Amino acid sequence: MKTIFSPRHAGHAGNVELEEGGIVPAYEKPSRAEIIRARINTVSLGPVSEPEEHDLETAAKVHRRDYLDFLPTVWPEWEQSGRSGTAMPFAWPTRGLRGDVPPTSIIAKLGFYSFDAGATFVKGTWDAIKSSHDTALTAANLVRSGERSAFALCRPPGHHAGSNFMGGYCFINNAAVAAQWFLDGGARRVSILDVDYHHGNGTQQIFYARNDVQVLNLHADPMSEYPFFLGHADETGEGEGQGFNHNFPMPAGTSWVQWAAALEEACSLIAGYEPDVLIVSLGVDTFERDPIGRFKLVSDDYPKIGRRIAGLKLPTLFVMEGGYAVEEIGINAVGVLTGFEEA
Amino acid sequence: MKTIFSPRHAGHAGNVELEEGGIVPAYEKPSRAEIIRARINTVSLGPVSEPEEHDLETAAKVHRRDYLDFLPTVWPEWEQSGRSGTAMPFAWPTRGLRGDVPPTSIIAKLGFYSFDAGATFVKGTWDAIKSSHDTALTAANLVRSGERSAFALCRPPGHHAGSNFMGGYCFINNAAVAAQWFLDGGARRVSILDVDYHHGNGTQQIFYARNDVQVLNLHADPMSEYPFFLGHADETGEGEGQGFNHNFPMPAGTSWVQWAAALEEACSLIAGYEPDVLIVSLGVDTFERDPIGRFKLVSDDYPKIGRRIAGLKLPTLFVMEGGYAVEEIGINAVGVLTGFEEA
Repeated sequence: MKTIFSPRHAGHAGNVELEEGGIVPAYEKPSRAEIIRARINTVSLGPVSEPEEHDLETAAKVHRRDYLDFLPTVWPEWEQSGRSGTAMPFAWPTRGLRGDVPPTSIIAKLGFYSFDAGATFVKGTWDAIKSSHDTALTAANLVRSGERSAFALCRPPGHHAGSNFMGGYCFINNAAVAAQWFLDGGARRVSILDVDYHHGNGTQQIFYARNDVQVLNLHADPMSEYPFFLGHADETGEGEGQGFNHNFPMPAGTSWVQWAAALEEACSLIAGYEPDVLIVSLGVDTFERDPIGRFKLVSDDYPKIGRRIAGLKLPTLFVMEGGYAVEEIGINAVGVLTGFEEA
Repeated sequence: MKTIFSPRHAGHAGNVELEEGGIVPAYEKPSRAEIIRARINTVSLGPVSEPEEHDLETAAKVHRRDYLDFLPTVWPEWEQSGRSGTAMPFAWPTRGLRGDVPPTSIIAKLGFYSFDAGATFVKGTWDAIKSSHDTALTAANLVRSGERSAFALCRPPGHHAGSNFMGGYCFINNAAVAAQWFLDGGARRVSILDVDYHHGNGTQQIFYARNDVQVLNLHADPMSEYPFFLGHADETGEGEGQGFNHNFPMPAGTSWVQWAAALEEACSLIAGYEPDVLIVSLGVDTFERDPIGRFKLVSDDYPKIGRRIAGLKLPTLFVMEGGYAVEEIGINAVGVLTGFEEA
């Protein structure tokens, strides 16, 4: 399997995040991608190459244009306003507040375009976002060109980012842009299978009223796990999208048997949908020792995920999402890919 | 003028807040109230006494019951979950997320019931909130009993708290509860004049569809100033409340002449409404050296505010809101009250 990877992710570094009453170094850090990159070499998964530049026209079909225009302006405006450190918001347009009036100050705009303080900016962030987007589309092109599969080693991740909001380390929804790219290239239907520990609220929101992208999420129950406010089982789509969104919330402590049963059900739904392409939003924070996840998958489980997905016999694009147990992130993420290859 | 003040505010101490990319000691701190208390003695404003206990039945007419039930549970649940420090949320039900499913975990519930990370809990917070609520109602009783005016030296403040949300240092909307108390006691109409630097988004939200409480806000333009997402001039009420909400957003740098013109217009609207009682949400973060405000009022301006309000010749309840220039907060807040008394 070929991998697309950009060294430009590394400029998105040194930022902090808000965590339960304190500021801590962000769990989403450059070593995550570097360790996966190294593991690809170790197991000789296949060649790794850099992405080609892509414009944002496809992204503009899944994100609002004003939101995409905003992202590159954040750091320059933050610096210009005399601020330093990590750019993050501290108030949001929720609960009786207006989301229809874009404010003028940078601190307010950060809140306007996000749902938490978790998508933060430093100097290199926009460049990393853009390279991550390019990584997804370049890898998608491999699959469009006839490869059985490809791996977009994206960083920052994307699945929490919605049409007009960032959050949870995510800015541009790489998987969603790739899905649109496949559709624009002639695919009739695309499935997105999100196996990250956290619900992919952004992906769900983007495609919620559409029937050309089936979205399936296996994740921790939002009643107690981030992002808390989306990802319940009764969210099945709306309008033309009714019936094309599938959530599998699972309780803390879930281990392989229960998780695999949900995967089996999701795979049946994918098979029934008969998509032309499958996109896997690949998070490995389901791992038993993940610092911000509470599932109990072990490293030996990840190749099994890959094998089951391979059984769908679909052109498959893997897009990297979360996973914060840095030591094991390479073994687990690449384990899914080698499992897929061996099947 | 009599003052009601509870020493129990002091238990709400030592908490931190999120400020533009970092965690800092909360600006809303016990010394604010203590310095005002001391200034009352210095200028012999009048007697200071402690509040009587009140139940939350009146509060339940302006706040949702589930929200009021939630507030006392925060600290015990936070501690029980093994957490310490300052309890604050880190994700909110905004932008494509659901606000209709109350989550189960304490960290999620904190986000569910707030619009920012600014209403934080430590061990003594609920007791302080309750004492602040009692302070407002006890002072309201003085006015109901025939006093020309009274001062509710509330801490924590209340004007950012809405029917089902906290934020911006505010939990229970003391001014809103007092307004409801006056109505329940026979007043036909109540005006709330909010002179705090920040828009009283909670007060506006609570009464937005009602015509028995007129709400007038003089504040910094939300396009660039907190709370960012409410407080525009075109927000005039809805339904039966249409025409009873008045916002006067003003730019950073506003000094007395411009501010006084807005006050004059607000006073005309109050006179036209012919309320039975006036409640003043008294914030003095309009002061030129306030650390989080950018207006340019000077200490000599505050007695003028009091004199103009006295000119309305209405029974008047002053309820303390914001003001963070701790050295001068006593001079400025009590300056409004002495100006009122002298008129």
